[in-house]
Amino acid sequence: MSFVFNLRAAWRDADSMLCVGLDPDPARFPAALAPREDAIFEFCRAIVDATAGYACAFKPQIAYFASQRAEDQLEALVGYIHERHPGVPVILDAKRGDIGSTAEHYAREVFERYRADAVTVSPYMGFDSIEPYLAYPGRGVILLCRTSNPGGGDLQSLRVARDDDVAASGARDAIAAEPERLFERVARLAAGPWNRSGELGLVVGATFPRELRRVRELAGEMPLLVPGVGAQGGDIESVVDAGATSEGAGMMVNSSRAILYASGGEDFAAAAGEAARATRDALRAAVAKKRAAGG
Amino acid sequence: MSFVFNLRAAWRDADSMLCVGLDPDPARFPAALAPREDAIFEFCRAIVDATAGYACAFKPQIAYFASQRAEDQLEALVGYIHERHPGVPVILDAKRGDIGSTAEHYAREVFERYRADAVTVSPYMGFDSIEPYLAYPGRGVILLCRTSNPGGGDLQSLRVARDDDVAASGARDAIAAEPERLFERVARLAAGPWNRSGELGLVVGATFPRELRRVRELAGEMPLLVPGVGAQGGDIESVVDAGATSEGAGMMVNSSRAILYASGGEDFAAAAGEAARATRDALRAAVAKKRAAGG
Repeated sequence: MSFVFNLRAAWRDADSMLCVGLDPDPARFPAALAPREDAIFEFCRAIVDATAGYACAFKPQIAYFASQRAEDQLEALVGYIHERHPGVPVILDAKRGDIGSTAEHYAREVFERYRADAVTVSPYMGFDSIEPYLAYPGRGVILLCRTSNPGGGDLQSLRVARDDDVAASGARDAIAAEPERLFERVARLAAGPWNRSGELGLVVGATFPRELRRVRELAGEMPLLVPGVGAQGGDIESVVDAGATSEGAGMMVNSSRAILYASGGEDFAAAAGEAARATRDALRAAVAKKRAAGG
Repeated sequence: MSFVFNLRAAWRDADSMLCVGLDPDPARFPAALAPREDAIFEFCRAIVDATAGYACAFKPQIAYFASQRAEDQLEALVGYIHERHPGVPVILDAKRGDIGSTAEHYAREVFERYRADAVTVSPYMGFDSIEPYLAYPGRGVILLCRTSNPGGGDLQSLRVARDDDVAASGARDAIAAEPERLFERVARLAAGPWNRSGELGLVVGATFPRELRRVRELAGEMPLLVPGVGAQGGDIESVVDAGATSEGAGMMVNSSRAILYASGGEDFAAAAGEAARATRDALRAAVAKKRAAGG
């Protein structure tokens, strides 16, 4: 079992780079579901069944379950996906970031309790905060790199130099020689010394295609999780042009609200399926266009 | 209600900078507790009652509860602390880092569901990832700055320059003029433009006293959460010398395992109380020594 291997199979089998984000907000559920005890599970289950044929991955966002005391429904949901749609990997979007025995407990939560195939992790605490997840063979770890929010650049776009570069040549030369940004450093570390398992990926927002292109240059064929298409304003053609590999894959382009809430009525699942199909088709068309342009 | 105000009162009333970390690991519980359904709550409750008189704060680490499916016991524990020890603030150590509606759900989890007084947050995604927590007046947000682990420096110690500095004077001059490190940038942002609520704090590891001193210079009287004393090797005297304010306070010096597992037998609570008292006394002695030296 390998997250990256299974993801490549999903890209091929579904011919889709769509990742369906599961951010269940009961305030937006159709009226018939609202009174049910297991409304969160039932809503997500219907979405999953309606969209699985168009998706390369599902990405439940744990905050939506945690704020509703719905951890049990998240466990049931991941179990359901594994049983009914075993070809579609599950990424738990948790953005964990801790070290040592605490990180071991988070890894246990993610991989043993929730049985996710991969998890999102913040790199701020360095390699120590990634290593405990690598103890689970074949599970994926997807590091925040360049996020889609406007303030994402507050730290991620800073130009950086290492202290030993500075000592060797003075700060000015170290920076002048290699004016790398923080997110580029993260991409290089993830593609190089940190990727001991071969199961790392990177989060790069759809809202910054130039940075996405740069990360693809640095990260080779590494899977990229790309949020920010749709509600956040990222454009599918420019995302595919910047981030797809030469095979026309390599990305999990996430869409959450535009699919989940395509309709607020009883037809929500059918509408979600339609929205997922349309997004998959737009991704396919963008790949075809890129190929036609020789990309 | 204000986290920082209450914390200052706790420093004064308890004359203690000890923060008791609640990282409950059932494998290390005394035999009599192990079979109980609510063993995690009962263990922590006994620790809390035995140490509250020596502590300025409690810091439950959510990973230990999440890996055990014990969210309900964490809710009960925070409620118990508020009821029995209302003068001791509760910091939920969760190191959250997300944006927009997802961060709103995390804030709801932390402040409404668990009723914590403060939460730890990662700054990697920038101010956007802090703002949703500030919507809760009087609640604290403690940002990761310089963490205590060896790999903490992988990113945090990089020398940084902003793009507009680079544009104005060229990268080399921007860096040469101000060879700030990433953690220093985080400290300056937290002490300045990001601190709209006046309720921010910073996490700075005990294992790097020079960096702790630097953060104290940059952050004024801002509360610092300082893990890494005890099991991780940080030294109390050098921590107090580097990080205490002129009032002999300003820090939550965290100790977890050295207190929780001071004894593995039935006397675990009494032993924890003794360990907490001894750590408080060592902190007091270090403050007295610093004062005697004119610090």
